[in-house]
Amino acid sequence: MTSYLIGIDGGGTSCRAAVAATDGRMLGRGKAGAANILTDPETALQNITDAARAAFEDAGLDPAGITVARAIVGVAGHNVGDAVHYVKRRLPFAAADIESDGLIALQGALGDKDGAVAILGTGTIYIARRGDTVSYVGGWGFTIGDHGSGARIGHALLQESLLAFDGIHEASPVTDSVFAEFNNDPRDVVDFARLAKPGEFGRYAPRVFEYADRGDAVALRLLKAAATTVDEALDVVVSRGSERLCLLGGLAVLYRPWLAKRHQPRFVEAEADALTGAVALAAARFGSQREVKA
Amino acid sequence: MTSYLIGIDGGGTSCRAAVAATDGRMLGRGKAGAANILTDPETALQNITDAARAAFEDAGLDPAGITVARAIVGVAGHNVGDAVHYVKRRLPFAAADIESDGLIALQGALGDKDGAVAILGTGTIYIARRGDTVSYVGGWGFTIGDHGSGARIGHALLQESLLAFDGIHEASPVTDSVFAEFNNDPRDVVDFARLAKPGEFGRYAPRVFEYADRGDAVALRLLKAAATTVDEALDVVVSRGSERLCLLGGLAVLYRPWLAKRHQPRFVEAEADALTGAVALAAARFGSQREVKA
Repeated sequence: MTSYLIGIDGGGTSCRAAVAATDGRMLGRGKAGAANILTDPETALQNITDAARAAFEDAGLDPAGITVARAIVGVAGHNVGDAVHYVKRRLPFAAADIESDGLIALQGALGDKDGAVAILGTGTIYIARRGDTVSYVGGWGFTIGDHGSGARIGHALLQESLLAFDGIHEASPVTDSVFAEFNNDPRDVVDFARLAKPGEFGRYAPRVFEYADRGDAVALRLLKAAATTVDEALDVVVSRGSERLCLLGGLAVLYRPWLAKRHQPRFVEAEADALTGAVALAAARFGSQREVKA
Repeated sequence: MTSYLIGIDGGGTSCRAAVAATDGRMLGRGKAGAANILTDPETALQNITDAARAAFEDAGLDPAGITVARAIVGVAGHNVGDAVHYVKRRLPFAAADIESDGLIALQGALGDKDGAVAILGTGTIYIARRGDTVSYVGGWGFTIGDHGSGARIGHALLQESLLAFDGIHEASPVTDSVFAEFNNDPRDVVDFARLAKPGEFGRYAPRVFEYADRGDAVALRLLKAAATTVDEALDVVVSRGSERLCLLGGLAVLYRPWLAKRHQPRFVEAEADALTGAVALAAARFGSQREVKA
């Protein structure tokens, strides 16, 4: 049986897979549900498998072939040991490595070149590569990090709506708008915040960009504070030698015009997506091993 | 059986009780474990009962007398309806009202005078009274409020230790000190923060005051930001007519020299503690009803 390469981009809302020839040439793509190896490893394993089988079908290949394929699986939380070992042992592939979703994004965005990616989404993390060295900045999660992330921006907006209610800070159209959604009742904001996951706070982030564009004073203040945290993190990766910066994630396009002038000339477009990066890593790591006995 | 008044000051770490004559004259005091009616109402009920019985014993009275006493019970989370109704129905007293811990603190601190208290502890809340009107500012909890609180200050310090680790912000003796306690491993900080309760973050707050006194740059920045949030909230209560401000809570003494000059002339010492306030409220509300049938 011919052996193929698989790239997996596992995320909190969906899992994408690609199948490629051993030289890295893409043959097909597939998709399945969420692959969060920390919070739900069984579902993650099922969706990784389903996405890989769908990619084989998309390529006109027998899905049974996934058992002799070699894979790079990119996921969030790759640095949390136990879950990684648990999932890695149970993957249905002939060989597989689990990497961070950031590393496969970096590989996709920059190819084999040096540089850094800033992933600006529900969370934030910065990943730089210089030669064989990959280094991470930030990405410690919503509770104690992820400055400038959608979750932090949305949280800050809800917080401002309470400060405006109390008369401590000024109200503005953006705080009025969010407070109205909570029936203008601070207790409803508190109830929501007590249980909200980062993604639920993050849903309010695009509104801050939208109102800042219209000149809303509170939105401008929140967005400038958030952009400063991104600029500061980019300063670190630049100081460590990254001259090419690629902004990725759901907020990348919104953020770009708000970031510091000093960084603007460094921004480059991504060459390809994270899934392509996963396949490229698989080709580099497993591409020379032509066949595996089924 | 003679009927007495009971004042209860129920907190997250302990519950204190006082028994008084119907004219408000203190007769005895008692103490028991935590009384958190939101997170553990059964234990709260037990500790409220134990503290009241201990107060009766301290006064040389038969503890069985609590069943014909009338009580004011001050607790956090008084505005969360269901828990209050549940606990109120099960209290072992002849009559009882549940009030906020802030209201009994205000009554204790200011007596019957107008003014405001700022409770600066693990959380923050501001309570002002003008005539018969009591108004609250802040106090929405750690997740989305409690600016300037011990929990927020401690959280900010841990956050700075990670920003220093990443090279995004400068390190300083205070960030070095806290990071060393987590084995200089950012993952240990993240693990702690993910599960830490507000009080656990708050344990790091006094260190920020301590290092700020020594001129530590990061401690000074964090403390000035926190003091600004307190100053802003005090501006609100002053603008609404409170000219006498009383700082209460575990951080009150530490905070006072860091608050704005404009507020300094307004600060007054508390006349008495929250337990005395609870008894005074009980005397005002129930003092005229001399006896209850057992």
